[in-house]
Amino acid sequence: MQDNISHIVSKLTAITGTEYVFTDMATRTHYGHDETEDYNFPPAVVVKPGNTEEVAAIMRLANEYKIPVVPIGGRTGLSGGALSIYGGIGLSMERFTKIAIDEKNLQATVEPAVITQVFREAAFEKGLFYPPDPSSQGSCTIGGNVAENAGGARALKYGVTKDYVLNLEVVLPTGEVIWTGANTLKNSTGYNLTQLMVGSEGTLGIITKIVMKLLPKNNYNVLMLVPFYKASQACEAVAEIFRAGIVPSALEFMERDAIDWTLKYVEGVSLTIKDEVEAHLLIEVDGNYPDVLFSEAEKIMGVLEQFDIDEILFADTEEQKNALWKMRRAVGEAVKSNSVYKEEDTVVPRYELPRLLQGIKAIGKKYGFHSVCYGHAGDGNLHVNIIKGNMSDENWTTEVPKGIREIFELTVSLKGTLSGEHGIGYVQKNYMDIAFGPTQLQLMKSIKTIFDPNNILNPGKILPDSY
Amino acid sequence: MQDNISHIVSKLTAITGTEYVFTDMATRTHYGHDETEDYNFPPAVVVKPGNTEEVAAIMRLANEYKIPVVPIGGRTGLSGGALSIYGGIGLSMERFTKIAIDEKNLQATVEPAVITQVFREAAFEKGLFYPPDPSSQGSCTIGGNVAENAGGARALKYGVTKDYVLNLEVVLPTGEVIWTGANTLKNSTGYNLTQLMVGSEGTLGIITKIVMKLLPKNNYNVLMLVPFYKASQACEAVAEIFRAGIVPSALEFMERDAIDWTLKYVEGVSLTIKDEVEAHLLIEVDGNYPDVLFSEAEKIMGVLEQFDIDEILFADTEEQKNALWKMRRAVGEAVKSNSVYKEEDTVVPRYELPRLLQGIKAIGKKYGFHSVCYGHAGDGNLHVNIIKGNMSDENWTTEVPKGIREIFELTVSLKGTLSGEHGIGYVQKNYMDIAFGPTQLQLMKSIKTIFDPNNILNPGKILPDSY
Repeated sequence: MQDNISHIVSKLTAITGTEYVFTDMATRTHYGHDETEDYNFPPAVVVKPGNTEEVAAIMRLANEYKIPVVPIGGRTGLSGGALSIYGGIGLSMERFTKIAIDEKNLQATVEPAVITQVFREAAFEKGLFYPPDPSSQGSCTIGGNVAENAGGARALKYGVTKDYVLNLEVVLPTGEVIWTGANTLKNSTGYNLTQLMVGSEGTLGIITKIVMKLLPKNNYNVLMLVPFYKASQACEAVAEIFRAGIVPSALEFMERDAIDWTLKYVEGVSLTIKDEVEAHLLIEVDGNYPDVLFSEAEKIMGVLEQFDIDEILFADTEEQKNALWKMRRAVGEAVKSNSVYKEEDTVVPRYELPRLLQGIKAIGKKYGFHSVCYGHAGDGNLHVNIIKGNMSDENWTTEVPKGIREIFELTVSLKGTLSGEHGIGYVQKNYMDIAFGPTQLQLMKSIKTIFDPNNILNPGKILPDSY
Repeated sequence: MQDNISHIVSKLTAITGTEYVFTDMATRTHYGHDETEDYNFPPAVVVKPGNTEEVAAIMRLANEYKIPVVPIGGRTGLSGGALSIYGGIGLSMERFTKIAIDEKNLQATVEPAVITQVFREAAFEKGLFYPPDPSSQGSCTIGGNVAENAGGARALKYGVTKDYVLNLEVVLPTGEVIWTGANTLKNSTGYNLTQLMVGSEGTLGIITKIVMKLLPKNNYNVLMLVPFYKASQACEAVAEIFRAGIVPSALEFMERDAIDWTLKYVEGVSLTIKDEVEAHLLIEVDGNYPDVLFSEAEKIMGVLEQFDIDEILFADTEEQKNALWKMRRAVGEAVKSNSVYKEEDTVVPRYELPRLLQGIKAIGKKYGFHSVCYGHAGDGNLHVNIIKGNMSDENWTTEVPKGIREIFELTVSLKGTLSGEHGIGYVQKNYMDIAFGPTQLQLMKSIKTIFDPNNILNPGKILPDSY
């Protein structure tokens, strides 16, 4: 392999120039991890192509030599999608950073390495709105968002990444370059290759351009933090708010631990929380008419009256709003900084949230682990952080996976599934048999084979090891 | 084949009972057409299964004997998707009519033969809203809507069928039964088989259950009809309204002929239109707050001031609104009743509409045909009805297809595509090379082969004859 790699390195250098090919251990290690637990799988070589043609040339080379290629974005993934588990070529897309906003059509053409927040702000400056806002928006990339079909806090009202992708330029594993669709809001022209590519976690092709739909921006919002004395009631309230005819722009759930740990971790946010409070909902409504928002906030308060809650905190200033969102977005990192952990990305129909939460706690008790739960409750998406804490390494590696399997079985029995927005990647792939039977898994495997006959693009992801 | 068919008929009878198998010419002819031009391709036998297991048994039988099967819904299609072009089994899904609305989760499980309007009304009665509203909503079925990824007048604000489908029960061509996803608003769990099935025009599987997302219903709308002295300005106004930050719930374009012919065709609607008026926009805003709607209507009027328009007609009563919508929905039928015609379903980014319209007229002049254009201008979707009128049969069969090809080439050059909501089916398949290169077409062909190795399910649709 080593000889082979020197040969490949010289070929890669011929494609991109020597300054964009790296074989030193520091660079390889840097590109060998994302935000998934403490994994590090360094690629044998890192290459940073500068345009679509270079990506295509790299894929033709990789195909010829049957070398694995892993596309790498912001490395903020939580399912190990960007890990080079078989070494090979780490294909960092970081030089793809152009944004072209088409104000006339409320669209944008974005390159994959654009940071999500940068794109959102660029749209905002033109009076336009790109809603998807993963918690990692300050460092994740649009390409990664498309690959994972990322969501975020606003998905319950505005949808997820897939709902904004109109068309994709893709380099296939064979090196061919295609556009998947058209730059139109509607499209009934052949099989939906665009949506097949979205959420395919870098296993079917390398995305080099993305045409996104944009909305007119709205100018106002109301944000409130609601403390619940019972976590189960916070979950119940979620469905009730929708049943009252309101579609909030965010409806986030945080267990007590999630907030406590985060307040310790984040600077500049202070909150006094009564000991008896078990959970919070962070609720936002947005729109163009402040009066309407106040009326919706009142309706929400009417719904909340039937639950056992403490005083609602309204964020009066932009500063307070930013502080609350900063806190919410930092939960993941805060939990991570506290202990070794595993994060699951369960999602169920929203009315089933209380049963999911209760079931997770019971499963934790059975297998001896503590979990911290938080997430996008408005769309039924609950992040479950399983905390290692003082658990023995043995229990961690033998008992916890059994518990995770039971959590996923519960999720699926509630008509939910394994991942709402993080993807399956490396760490969840051997649970896929819970969500799908052999027929669906074989269909997926066959689709993979069509696009990637030599299985060189991000191999060992999504499908169970037995496929 | 005839011997074979009697054998098949007896096998089908064993599956569904004799009362659901038909070989008489009247029935076969009835199921041999949809609303596509004047085509009639009768199946050799019509069968009406009563449940998923019967569909599965029929597919296993068809696979064993390599007999084509065409799934048949409301037969309102405009691209010939339900035509039994190779005879075989016409599989009418008409007994699949159950609706189960899950108010707690704002979802519904719907069987494919439910009429779209029936489903919309059932949701409405529970205070819920299923937005997609194809013009044929009174007779088309939800299953057909999923198969074609149908749109409608509200798509510009609320999206198309694909944006509401969460999960599908599907009988594969091999007779296996799968669910494609989960009943969740977000899903990043493997390749998106659900979205691959939506819009696949009955070529990848037979849909037997559909889990749909619903919204809380809104209670108010404002509807206005705007006469333009220049058709091109009506097209220009479309993009301007969005650029003013307004997202109407409908924004429909009708050329003068479309309205004139429809007023003659539809009873109970009368309108006086000045001779100089070339086109109309029908504009609707909807929501829960009448004051907001009036304010948005005013903003729209502000945008319209810059164009050369006649007096705006506001629909003051439900009756007036219904009359205007009845007129708009009847345009297709009215045009059809007037002459032999061909309908194209062009779609472009909305700012390109004026160029598309202008180009279509120039192409018509070049090839000697008259066209009547109307459609969902808010999402760039323009239906082009090419009128035979007094044209010779020879010109109709030789010159018109050249003109259609040029229209599609223009559409694609404007970053649009062949079909926004009608599908490709039988009549547009040999134009697919304009939208896609050999690589994409081969990918689609390979996907078809994975799902349907014997090419028995709705063969001869979507892909060009050379694939």
